[in-house]
Amino acid sequence: MVTVGIDIGGMSFKVGLVDDEGKILKKYSIPVDYSLSQEDMVRNLGRSVDEFLKKEQIALGEARGIGIGCPGAINPIKGTCDYSPNLKWNKLDVCGIINKETGLNCRISNDANVACLGEQKFGAAKGYKDVVLITLGTGVGGGVVIDGRLFEGNQGKGTELGHEVICRGGRKCSCGRRGCLEAYASATALLKDTKRAMAKDKKSLMWDYCEGKIKNVTGLTSFECAKKGDKTANAVIDNYVSWLCTGLLNICNIFRPECIVLGGGISNQKDFFLNKVKKCMEDNHYGFGGDVSPKVDIVISNLRNDAGVIGAASLFLE
Amino acid sequence: MVTVGIDIGGMSFKVGLVDDEGKILKKYSIPVDYSLSQEDMVRNLGRSVDEFLKKEQIALGEARGIGIGCPGAINPIKGTCDYSPNLKWNKLDVCGIINKETGLNCRISNDANVACLGEQKFGAAKGYKDVVLITLGTGVGGGVVIDGRLFEGNQGKGTELGHEVICRGGRKCSCGRRGCLEAYASATALLKDTKRAMAKDKKSLMWDYCEGKIKNVTGLTSFECAKKGDKTANAVIDNYVSWLCTGLLNICNIFRPECIVLGGGISNQKDFFLNKVKKCMEDNHYGFGGDVSPKVDIVISNLRNDAGVIGAASLFLE
Repeated sequence: MVTVGIDIGGMSFKVGLVDDEGKILKKYSIPVDYSLSQEDMVRNLGRSVDEFLKKEQIALGEARGIGIGCPGAINPIKGTCDYSPNLKWNKLDVCGIINKETGLNCRISNDANVACLGEQKFGAAKGYKDVVLITLGTGVGGGVVIDGRLFEGNQGKGTELGHEVICRGGRKCSCGRRGCLEAYASATALLKDTKRAMAKDKKSLMWDYCEGKIKNVTGLTSFECAKKGDKTANAVIDNYVSWLCTGLLNICNIFRPECIVLGGGISNQKDFFLNKVKKCMEDNHYGFGGDVSPKVDIVISNLRNDAGVIGAASLFLE
Repeated sequence: MVTVGIDIGGMSFKVGLVDDEGKILKKYSIPVDYSLSQEDMVRNLGRSVDEFLKKEQIALGEARGIGIGCPGAINPIKGTCDYSPNLKWNKLDVCGIINKETGLNCRISNDANVACLGEQKFGAAKGYKDVVLITLGTGVGGGVVIDGRLFEGNQGKGTELGHEVICRGGRKCSCGRRGCLEAYASATALLKDTKRAMAKDKKSLMWDYCEGKIKNVTGLTSFECAKKGDKTANAVIDNYVSWLCTGLLNICNIFRPECIVLGGGISNQKDFFLNKVKKCMEDNHYGFGGDVSPKVDIVISNLRNDAGVIGAASLFLE
C-alpha cells in the first residue's frame, strides 16, 4: 500500500508517494498560484494528484489516502483550513475538495503537527512514543505526539507551543500578546538580535560577513561568525539558546516527553547549535524535579525537507 | 463493585469506599504520624484499609482495587513516591506496601492528576473529554485529561503546570527557577502580594479585617475586603487574576482543552473569583487564534474536599 503526502507551503505544494515504511517513492512539486481563488488553488492540486496517481498506475484500492500538512489554523475533524495568513486561506474545505477530485480519503493537520508525527514514526525520534517537535523558522511551531498518537487539542487548536508567554510584558509577538516564545526563539527574532548586536559592535566579524551591509544579515550570520570565534556573534547565539531553553524547560515540565525534536531553519546549524542547547538543558537539570525526573533527549530533525510530505502521509500510518 | 480511594495529604490520610458512579459510600481519615518511618506510615495505612474492608464486609473480589493520590513526584508505573517534600518521603514503594497489606491491586498518581480525573469523570468537568485542572493552593498543581484518559508524561513527571515560566527572571520559585506561574498564582503568592499592598496603603480595609496585625493576613483577606469594595484589595485580586490568566492562556494555547477546572483554596471564592477569571480570559480571546479557536470553559471544581478520594478511586474507573 502507498499513501500520498502533501506538504502545503507558501511557495509550493509538495506531493509525494510514500510507502508504509515512510520512504518517498516519487515526488514532485507545483508552485502556488496566488492569481487563483483559494478553492481553485486546492482544486488544481487535487487534479494534479489525480493525474499523478493515474500516471503512476496506482489504483484507488492501493492508496491508503491523502495526508495533508498545512500551515495555519486547521480543523482536522472537519478537514478544513480555518485560517492561514501565509496562504490567505479562510474557512477552506481542503479535504472536501481534494476528495472530490481524487476519490480518496483525506486527512489534514497543521504542518508542525505532521512534521512531529513523521519524525516520531520514521525520523529522528523513531523509537520514542512521547515526542514534542519545535520548528524554529519564521515563527515557532509545535507538534506533540503522545503514546504514538498525534495530540492536537480541541478542534486541532492546541500545541501552539510558540505562543506560550515566557516573558510577560516582553517583546511584541505576531499573535498580539507580548513575551511569547516565538518573539525570542524564531529565526526572525534571531535576525533582529543579530542586527541589534552589530549596531553596538562595529568591529564584529559579522560586518565583514555581510559585506558591511545590514540588509545582508540573515539567520546564518551570527551562527557562521560564532563558529569563527567572534565574541559578539557568540553572545547573540548564547542569548538566543538561553531564551529557547526557557521555553524547552517549560515543555519538559508540561509534557515531560521522552524526546524533543528541533526542526526549522535554525536547526540546520546541527551539532554547533544542538550542543549549546543540550548544555543549557543539562545545566538546568531538564526542568522540574532535577534528578528525580527523567532526562529529555534533544535531537535535530532528520527528515529535513521531506518531513512535511512523510509526516502528512503518516496521518494514515498511525 | 467498589473501589478504595486514598487521598494522601501532609496532615491526614483520607480513605473512602467509592462506587462505580463516583459516590463515596463510607469514608474515614487517619492523622499522619511523623514519628514513624516512611515505610511504617504506609504500612499502617494499608493495615487500616484492610481492617476497614473487613469491617465493611467487602470481599477481595468485590473491590476493583486501591487508587492513591499523593503529593510530590510520583512514578505511576513503578507505583512509587519518588520524592514528596511535605511528607518527607523518598523513593517509597507505596503501592507495593499497600498491596502487601491488603492483597488488592494499587495504582498511584500525583494528587492534582487524580483530582483532574475525578472532576472529569464525576465532577465539574463531567461531559468534557479534554480537561486541565489547576490547583491554586500553597503551590500551583496541574492535572491533564486527554480524551478521557489521564496524561502524566514520561514516568509521571509531566503536567507540572505551576512550573511554566511566565516571567523569565521574575520572582523566585520554590523549584529553584524564576518566574514560574506558581510564584504568582499560588495562595502563598497572593498572601505576599496582600501584605505588600497593605504596607503601601495604611488606610485599606484590610487592616481592619486583620485587626491591625499583618500576621493575621490570610489568603482570604484580600478577597473578603475586595468584595466589600476596598480599592487596594480589589487591585491585589485583579493583579493576581491577571497573572493567573497569563498562565491559563498559555494552557489554552498548549492544550486547548474543552474545559479548565480551578481547584485549591483560592477557588473557594467561587463566582466572585470565577467571574474575574472568565472576564480576563474573554478579554484575551482565550488565547491564540482569536475567534477561530474554540472557547475554553472555565469552571470551579465541585468535588471539593472529596476530589482527592474520588479522583484516586477513578484510577480504576477509566
